[in-house]
Amino acid sequence: MKIRAAAEPDHDPIWRIFHAVVATGDTYAIDPYISREKALAYWFGADIQTYVAESAGRIGGTYILRPNQSGGGSHVANAAFMVAPDARGQGIGRAMAEHCLSEACRLGFRAVQFNFVVSTNESAIRLWKQLGFKIVGTLPVAFRHPEKGYVDVFVMYRSLR
Amino acid sequence: MKIRAAAEPDHDPIWRIFHAVVATGDTYAIDPYISREKALAYWFGADIQTYVAESAGRIGGTYILRPNQSGGGSHVANAAFMVAPDARGQGIGRAMAEHCLSEACRLGFRAVQFNFVVSTNESAIRLWKQLGFKIVGTLPVAFRHPEKGYVDVFVMYRSLR
Repeated sequence: MKIRAAAEPDHDPIWRIFHAVVATGDTYAIDPYISREKALAYWFGADIQTYVAESAGRIGGTYILRPNQSGGGSHVANAAFMVAPDARGQGIGRAMAEHCLSEACRLGFRAVQFNFVVSTNESAIRLWKQLGFKIVGTLPVAFRHPEKGYVDVFVMYRSLR
Repeated sequence: MKIRAAAEPDHDPIWRIFHAVVATGDTYAIDPYISREKALAYWFGADIQTYVAESAGRIGGTYILRPNQSGGGSHVANAAFMVAPDARGQGIGRAMAEHCLSEACRLGFRAVQFNFVVSTNESAIRLWKQLGFKIVGTLPVAFRHPEKGYVDVFVMYRSLR
């Protein structure tokens, strides 16, 4: 598996993954009906580094890395990860997360923060904890899960120093 | 004091307040050298309600109200407040915050969240607590204060139900 910076030819596979991930509406606070144009504008926005995980010529996942805030908050990174539904269970998420921590260090960030980890997303939370992230905040019933109703959301944080 | 929706003629006073507030770099995670154009684009962005506090024909403060997230997170509002440095101590911040809670209710939000309250901003924290906000998260050394160095940041949250 190779993780590399995304480029224009990756737009199609990234959109397929993005669409499949947000369409279920159970992990991301993103409109499940977002257009391809808006999704790609978001995923390739200003100040955003976009990466893909490629294996045997196929893109199985993608992630973004960016400053979580501007000005006096720009030393803390934010990241978001998406794995193609039919490529789960292969360690792509973990490989991207490890790559992300390394990239965040290389780019000079002092910490990585996830702003919105839905509390029912247990596999993600388990992985983030294994990688040293801690829950530093709990947002009460801040997410409307399509099956479970209003559920809590975690803010997770990992220092890189 | 009248608090009302902002309009185009308010751009000048809003920019003066915005610039004065972010230039000190000690409360907002915004580039202190942000341009007028970018500042107004941010303060009047898509999905954002913008308000001003007016007294005797003078704009003493401004605030924004918006969904903090999209999709399954859009029932939680986010807000940000700015008071002109020479208009502080007159209750403008409190009046705008009370107006904001009322507007958030009227617009159907279920809660209001502040994502980035710098821990050294004691007057703001005291006001938010008086208005029913609780600290639900602490982001370790997530803000670089121009005099105090790296300081913690709070996530604050208030249910409207």
